[in-house]
Order: sequence, then C-alpha cells, then structure tokens
Amino acid sequence: MNRARLEAFSDGVFAVAITLLAFNLAVGGPGAHHPTLAAQLAGHWPAFAAYTISFATIGIIWVNHHALLRNFAEIDRALLFANLLLLFFVVAIPFTTTTIAAYLRAGGGSASLAAALYQGVFEGMAVSFTLLFWWAIRRDHLQVPLTPGQARQATIRFGIGNLGYIIGIGIAFISPPASLALSGLVAVYYIFEQTPARAQRPPGHGGPATTTAASDPAPAEQ
Amino acid sequence: MNRARLEAFSDGVFAVAITLLAFNLAVGGPGAHHPTLAAQLAGHWPAFAAYTISFATIGIIWVNHHALLRNFAEIDRALLFANLLLLFFVVAIPFTTTTIAAYLRAGGGSASLAAALYQGVFEGMAVSFTLLFWWAIRRDHLQVPLTPGQARQATIRFGIGNLGYIIGIGIAFISPPASLALSGLVAVYYIFEQTPARAQRPPGHGGPATTTAASDPAPAEQ
Amino acid sequence: MNRARLEAFSDGVFAVAITLLAFNLAVGGPGAHHPTLAAQLAGHWPAFAAYTISFATIGIIWVNHHALLRNFAEIDRALLFANLLLLFFVVAIPFTTTTIAAYLRAGGGSASLAAALYQGVFEGMAVSFTLLFWWAIRRDHLQVPLTPGQARQATIRFGIGNLGYIIGIGIAFISPPASLALSGLVAVYYIFEQTPARAQRPPGHGGPATTTAASDPAPAEQ
Amino acid sequence: MNRARLEAFSDGVFAVAITLLAFNLAVGGPGAHHPTLAAQLAGHWPAFAAYTISFATIGIIWVNHHALLRNFAEIDRALLFANLLLLFFVVAIPFTTTTIAAYLRAGGGSASLAAALYQGVFEGMAVSFTLLFWWAIRRDHLQVPLTPGQARQATIRFGIGNLGYIIGIGIAFISPPASLALSGLVAVYYIFEQTPARAQRPPGHGGPATTTAASDPAPAEQ
Repeated sequence: MNRARLEAFSDGVFAVAITLLAFNLAVGGPGAHHPTLAAQLAGHWPAFAAYTISFATIGIIWVNHHALLRNFAEIDRALLFANLLLLFFVVAIPFTTTTIAAYLRAGGGSASLAAALYQGVFEGMAVSFTLLFWWAIRRDHLQVPLTPGQARQATIRFGIGNLGYIIGIGIAFISPPASLALSGLVAVYYIFEQTPARAQRPPGHGGPATTTAASDPAPAEQ
Repeated sequence: MNRARLEAFSDGVFAVAITLLAFNLAVGGPGAHHPTLAAQLAGHWPAFAAYTISFATIGIIWVNHHALLRNFAEIDRALLFANLLLLFFVVAIPFTTTTIAAYLRAGGGSASLAAALYQGVFEGMAVSFTLLFWWAIRRDHLQVPLTPGQARQATIRFGIGNLGYIIGIGIAFISPPASLALSGLVAVYYIFEQTPARAQRPPGHGGPATTTAASDPAPAEQ
Repeated sequence: MNRARLEAFSDGVFAVAITLLAFNLAVGGPGAHHPTLAAQLAGHWPAFAAYTISFATIGIIWVNHHALLRNFAEIDRALLFANLLLLFFVVAIPFTTTTIAAYLRAGGGSASLAAALYQGVFEGMAVSFTLLFWWAIRRDHLQVPLTPGQARQATIRFGIGNLGYIIGIGIAFISPPASLALSGLVAVYYIFEQTPARAQRPPGHGGPATTTAASDPAPAEQ
Repeated sequence: MNRARLEAFSDGVFAVAITLLAFNLAVGGPGAHHPTLAAQLAGHWPAFAAYTISFATIGIIWVNHHALLRNFAEIDRALLFANLLLLFFVVAIPFTTTTIAAYLRAGGGSASLAAALYQGVFEGMAVSFTLLFWWAIRRDHLQVPLTPGQARQATIRFGIGNLGYIIGIGIAFISPPASLALSGLVAVYYIFEQTPARAQRPPGHGGPATTTAASDPAPAEQ
C-alpha cells in the first residue's frame, strides 16, 4: 500500500465530509407557513455555529493527518484499518452537526443528548488519531523518530484534546450551548498551538529536511 | 490509461459513496409529531448497524482494490469497464443501506426484500471484483505473478465472500436481521483474514520488493 | 496549469456526479401511505434504467476524457474553460436523471420534455467534448498528432454520438421510453466501438509508446 | 506539508461543491398538486441562472487557485489555514445558491437578504483569496517573484472583483435580480480578463519556464 493512495482516499473523504456540512444550513423556502428569511436565519444560529466549529475541526484533523502520514516510513494493513476507524468518525460528523443544529434550541434531554453525541464523535475521532500516532511510534514506523521531549509534547497535546472532548460530553448534560462553545475552543487551541513544539526542537535535529515547517515530524498534535 | 488516474477516479467514487452512507443516519427534527431524540436514535438502530457494516465493507473493498491494482502491469479498456462495473455496485450501496435501514423493522416481505437487495449489491460487487482478479491473472497482466498456491488461496477467499453473500440472500427471506448480521460477519472475516496467505509465501519470493506488506502481491482477497 | 491537477479536479467532478446518481434511487419508507417495497421498486423501474444509462454514459465520457487528456502536450486557459463547459453538463446529469425518472411514467408533454432534457444534456456534453477535441487538433496541442485517417475516424465517431442524441431529442416528443432506450444504445455503441480504430493504426506508428492501449492517441471517440 | 496534498484536498472540496450546486435544480415530481414540468422549469429560472453563475465562479476560482499554488515555493501552517478559510466560503456557495434560487422571486426583504448573502459569500471567498495572495508576496513565498507591474496588475484585478461583489451587496437591497446579474458579469470579466497581464510580461522574463501559459506566475487574478 503506497502512501499516495491512502492520502488520496482520505483526502476524498475529508473533502466530501467537510463539503456536506453545509447541507445542514438549508432553510425552508418562501411560503405562508414559513417566516421571513431573516427570521429563519436568526433562528438557525446553532446550524451556523455548528457548521463553523465542525468545519474548523475537520480542517485541523486534515492538517494533522497530513503531517502524521508524511512521516510514516511504512504503511501496513493494521494502519489502513486504524485510518478507516478515523474516517468512520469523520464521516459521522455531518450527521452529528445536523443533529445538534436541530436540537440545540429544543432544550431538555434531547439537546443534551445531541451535544453529547456531537462531542462523542469528536472524541472518537481524537482517540482514533491517538491510536494511529501511538501505533506508529511504538512500531518504529516513523521516518524521523521523535525525541522523548517531542513524544511527551505530542502526548500532552493529544491529552488536552481528548480531555476537552470528554469534559464536553459531561457539560452537554448541564448546558448544551456551553458544550458546543467548548468544542469551538478546542478547535481554536489547535489552530494556534504549535509554535512551542517547533521552538523546542533542537537546532539541526534531523538534518536539512527539518528546516521547513513542511517536514516537521512533530505536528501530529491531535 | 495510466494507473494513477484509474485509482484517483475509483478513490473518488469510494470516498463519496462511503461518506454518503452517513446521510442515512439523519433523524427528524424536534416537534410535536416526533418522539425525543433518544427514542428516535434507539428506534433507528438498523440505520447505525447498516451504516457500520456498509462502511466496513466499502473500506475493505477499497483496501483490496488498491492491493490488486498495485500489481497490475497494464490497464486496458476491458479492465476499465470491469472496474466501472465494480463501481456501479459500490455506488448503489448507499441506496441499499438506506433501504434496509428503513425496512428492517417493518418485517414481512418488504424487510426480506430489503435485506436480499442489500446482500445482492454486495454480491454484485464481490463478483465484479472476482472478474477483475481473474481477468488479470488469465491475461498475465500482473507484475508479480501469483504462485499456484497463492492463486488457490485467493480463490478460496473469493469463494468464502461470494458464498457468504449468496447465503445471506437466502437467509434474508427467513430472518432479515440475521442476514444483516451475516454481512457483518463477512466484513469481520475479511478484516482479520490475511495472515495465512502471507505466512505461506515462500521466503525471498519476488525479491526485496516483497519484504513489506505494501508490496504483497496476493492481498486481493475479496 | 499542469495536467495532473486538471485531471484530479475533473476526476473529482466525474466521481461525485456518478455517485450522486444513486440518490435518485431512494424509495419511500414503510407506512400506511406507501405500497410494499416490491411494488415501489417495480414502479420505480425508470429510475433504475436511467441510473444505469447515466452511469454508463458518465463512465464512458470519463474513459474518453482520460484518453484525450493523456495526449495533450499543453494546457492553456481556453482549454481549461472548455473543460469546465464539459463538466457543467456532467454535473447536470444527476438532475436530468432524477427528472426523467420522475416523469417518464407520467406521460404527456412532461414526459417528453423530461426525455428531451435528458438527451439535451448528453448532447451538450458531447458537443463540449467535440470542442475540446477539435481545439486540440486545430491548435496542434497533441503530443502524438493524429493521422488524417484517425482524425476522420474520430470525427465519424463524434458524429454518431452527436447524431444519436439529436435524434433522441426528436424521439422524446414521440415516445419518451424509446428516447431513453436510444441513449442506452449510444452508450453500448461506445463501450464496444473502438477495436476497428485500433486495428487500422499502421504498425509501428508513433514508436514504442504506442505498443499498449494505455498510450493509444486516438481513443477520444465521443 | 507538500503542495500535492494541499491541492488534492482543495480540488476535492471544489469538485464536491461544484457538483452539489446541481442539487438545487431538483423539481417536484408529477402529481395533482404540482404544475407541468414545463411550468415548473420556467418558474425555476432563478435556480438555473444561479447554478450557472455559481458554477462559473467556482470554476474561475479553481483555475486561479491552481495558478497561485503552482507558484508557491513553500507551504506553511498559516497558508494552510488561509486556504481553509477560502474553502470555508467555497463550501457555503451551494447553500447561498439554493437560498437565492428559492427567494429571488419572493421579492421583498427576503429576496434582498438572499441576494446579499449570495454576494457576501463570494466577497468572503474573494477576500480570502486576496489574503492568500498578499501573504505569499509579502513573505517572499513565490518561486518566481512578481515584478512591481505585475503586482500592481494583480492588485487592480483583485480590486475589481472585490468591488464588484461589494457593489452587488448594495444593489441587492434595490434589485435582487440586478445583483444576481452583476455577479454573472464579474464571472464573465474574469473569464476573459487575462490577456493584458500576459502581454505586459517582459519577453524572456523568468527563463524558458515562462514560455507556456502553464507556468505563468501571474494569473492569480481574483
């Protein structure tokens, strides 16, 4: 199994899933039984919030997926199925996004369940990604091995994401909107959190291949 | 026809089909005429079961498709159309998945027909894949020819999958849920069944290119 | 503009369009106001026929698109927009397929219009493809130029497809099912029609690169 | 991050978004409560107009995206997220296209809002593209640097697009159909507007790599 086709298939799934998110935004047509477009859009705010957060989350996982796979020396059958597990959760995101958009304002147990489901699928995705990562470093499948410091850094980053989603599942049963907001904060954290790891890399480590961000072996932070 | 574009197009179809599966999961919005989200999700279990089984089945056929094409020395027009026949069935999977999800709990003749259709499309996919494989070994289109033992192994594996789906069509008319469960078992079989074939490969066969799973010429097991 | 990305984008559009065709197949769920699944599927036959014909037609145009682009020496902005015109019609095929599936059995002017629209989009696709082809040979953009005999052959093939779809538009106003059947015949014609052109190729023409079907410069038959 | 995978993912998103546009075209089935197909299609003209304009706009941005990325020497994390911002707006286009198609004939505030939203998402896409472009030339990330004249040309072109969409947002509140027509004019402008920039390029600039349009470093006009 060459890496190119694994990436092509994964990219296809990421691209379709991220584009289908916007289906969620559809409003009803004009008519006697529908309010004005402005009223519909205003009432539709959970759909826009969930669309934005899900888009950012899939975008980030795609960036990290790419960074991780670039550093793989070898791709075996176990990794293919671990990757399919990751995609299994990615594909479910448009569903959980639609569900939280529909139920967030309904309140009660349904809103909590929708929010917990939304966070739960993100958590499944994060756990799958952690599996991919640990499997790679345990089996020495990386082209450029991580230093112990980098592995610790990466573990801390994974932990923060996983912890964030688990806390989010808990908060879902107290305040579904707060749970949604937390998943947005996790996305923002991952967008900005990478500079420290790069700054800590000892100069010259790994030779010329590491002089650009493109070949950084450690950005697998989620 | 170069292999890269055949793979890219096939990967695109696999990726879209696997992502569309989740459309099947959509539940109704909140409202007086809908039960709570928890009740809807619980009543929706055939959709989740069918989604999981279809996802695994498309994922496996993608892994095997990749392994088979890697070993093709030449791609001619007949192979292109055999590949289109395979994709014809892959594209139909979201339809049969939605149909079994909708009808499994309805019982009666409709549930049986839905389950038979679900298995029938898997069988069409398995037969197309077998055609691709036999056409390749008959016409000497493989880069690394199979040993007679490997060809026999592959034939047994194809046979088990094909037999499983045909039995599944029969069981559909007795118990649709058992038929669905059987297609799940076939998927599990294909996830774990590959080690024997690799163990049987004579050491050194095919030179250094066969020292990793990535260049194994025989994983075309479905 | 390198060819790889033009192919990747086009393949993506072909793959999504061909996969969306199956959305057309969805049947209603079980319920008091719906007939049995068997009755629904039987009444749904135009959807299955149209799905099969559209799938074959997009598959063929993809095969031919690939063959044509392989032989392009240079890709300029005019060609990019000619290609977008082709994709404009490809993207419309799921829409015309759904429409003919819905209206074929309704009869009357609506069925005729649906059939004419279905053939009309195929004709638009065929004309765009002819444009791509003529533009390439007029501007000397082919890597391996066609012999006059090959150009004549290709023109005859284009003519048959274009003529078939135009006749189909006319027949749509007499018998919509006959019009649908004709578009199926055109697809079958293109699946089997290529051997003569290959047999006529003078031996040795074009050097070693033409010894496999993969580098045949003339399969751009639609 | 290598450019190939960034392009593959972006192409996937462009391809899915452009193909989903046609979902917008679906008409109701035959039945007592629906008019004839001809009447439905005639009443549906805003959907066809919006489909055509959105298709052309996504097609153009894809052509320009490709041209810009080809000239990037290096891809860092900031660029990845700027690209995700661009795709965020691209993915929203099927939604705004459906919305303007549904509301254009409704008139009143809803039609104006739908038209403003339609232009607003195009403007968001144009601003993101401008960001990508400026970030690249400020940080010296281009393989072939632009001459001051080329940078000025590109800035003028960006300005015309951005201005066109902003005017379109304003016109939306006076005449939604005129606003839609303006976005069509902007698309036509970008299809034909590139020759001047190419003519101004000093002969020999950039070496042999610039002798074909394929390696033109300056077509990033939107």
